[in-house]
Amino acid sequence: MDTWMRFMSSDGGVVFGRVEGAYLHEYESLDQPVPTGAVLSTRALTPLAPCAPGKIVALWNNYHALAAKLDKPVPAHPLFLLKPAGSVIGSGEPIRRPASYAGKIVYEGELGIVIGRRCRDVSVDEAAEAIFGYTLVNDVTAADLLNENPHFPQWCRAKGFDTFCCIGPAIVSGFNWRSAHLVTLLDDVERQNYPLSDMVFSPAEQVSLISQDLTLEPGDVIACGTSVGVGSIKDGATVSVFIDGIGTLKNTLGAARAALAETPEYAVMARPA
Amino acid sequence: MDTWMRFMSSDGGVVFGRVEGAYLHEYESLDQPVPTGAVLSTRALTPLAPCAPGKIVALWNNYHALAAKLDKPVPAHPLFLLKPAGSVIGSGEPIRRPASYAGKIVYEGELGIVIGRRCRDVSVDEAAEAIFGYTLVNDVTAADLLNENPHFPQWCRAKGFDTFCCIGPAIVSGFNWRSAHLVTLLDDVERQNYPLSDMVFSPAEQVSLISQDLTLEPGDVIACGTSVGVGSIKDGATVSVFIDGIGTLKNTLGAARAALAETPEYAVMARPA
Repeated sequence: MDTWMRFMSSDGGVVFGRVEGAYLHEYESLDQPVPTGAVLSTRALTPLAPCAPGKIVALWNNYHALAAKLDKPVPAHPLFLLKPAGSVIGSGEPIRRPASYAGKIVYEGELGIVIGRRCRDVSVDEAAEAIFGYTLVNDVTAADLLNENPHFPQWCRAKGFDTFCCIGPAIVSGFNWRSAHLVTLLDDVERQNYPLSDMVFSPAEQVSLISQDLTLEPGDVIACGTSVGVGSIKDGATVSVFIDGIGTLKNTLGAARAALAETPEYAVMARPA
Repeated sequence: MDTWMRFMSSDGGVVFGRVEGAYLHEYESLDQPVPTGAVLSTRALTPLAPCAPGKIVALWNNYHALAAKLDKPVPAHPLFLLKPAGSVIGSGEPIRRPASYAGKIVYEGELGIVIGRRCRDVSVDEAAEAIFGYTLVNDVTAADLLNENPHFPQWCRAKGFDTFCCIGPAIVSGFNWRSAHLVTLLDDVERQNYPLSDMVFSPAEQVSLISQDLTLEPGDVIACGTSVGVGSIKDGATVSVFIDGIGTLKNTLGAARAALAETPEYAVMARPA
């Protein structure tokens, strides 16, 4: 098992590599995992989400226990929505309540698959080889928006807000998901604790089947869906998603984005000539 | 009005700029529209989709005539799904039937908004200034998948296949959408002809409201939704979407992707060391 992380350096550059103890052994990139030779102390670095996915494919109803609780049949093909790249934050970064939304915000602790190679119509065996590693995802949802309109379930909107895709803290390659449990804590109280072996579609099956639908690119993340124990996050509460061997993804539901609206970063940012 | 296009040059590089007659006046990029000074003959260039969106926000039920036909109320907020970057092709490129899908494939001729600046929680006035220009979209759908699972409408899957987002041929800035009609031809027979003034949310309203949900980036495309006249495309048929002042977006439903599966481009593409 190797542990991979991405950091911002003091000069604002982004570095990626393999972590050993307090040191980062820098690599070119996730899809070109070639060491640069540089070794950096992680103390001088700020952790980021461990990859920068172009898209996040988020599954619904991929655990037998959840399907049973929802009283829905398990699907014949992965059921998914897309979360945009802009929704991604790393461990330790705040989840921001949208300025326009006062309703219920829900956590979902999930295993994340990180794609290592471009995949299109790949077999299950090819898919297994195309998985770079595994991470943790908190797939956050503005739950009241989902069925706000009775004619069109708003999956992409409810799950697509900036900061609504927490990923991290690391990607672990060579990880054996079959024997692992995922645990989610809400303010240190255990709310989810489920075995990954209860998945309907295994990670390699997900990659293979989804690659029939759209091309998966290096760094893309598949959020494998959640199981029972989903609940709402009060403002100021902290969600920790944990898998032994991967680590803990920890994010607090922070102040509304409106509180930051006066800074230029949160308004129109680039003005062309 | 200026017309902007993107091309591949003979050395495989990508160039973007303003087209005048048979010449391209090259610009740095869509979000840095600064002339490089280079003027190129377009005859030596291969047209591409006019931008490379990180995401495509595709609206449903955004025309009064379609809402009336569907007997649905017009929505209070734009209803959208996301199409991935990998679904984009330009005018003249073939739409590919997915290898795994033998069902009905449907065209939808739409106005496309191309974002020029990063937008987050912008007002309608700010939104109007953040629009770089307008293009044409054929928002293609594998219609039989949409409600294949009765518990989860598969919007992202049905509309997210590679080649299912035709965009082009150009972006026109300074275009007055209010007086324009969109026409869709299927094999030269008119199937759609609707006024853009029938939109529920105007382009600036769409950008403003959607920027409350997710950050829009330069080059992102909002497909404004379609109106009445949607229909299916038989294999080998050609769809042409036309707006006077923007041009014609023309794509043929080509051979199944399976026929190309033996070329390396259509299998796993990059193998890390």
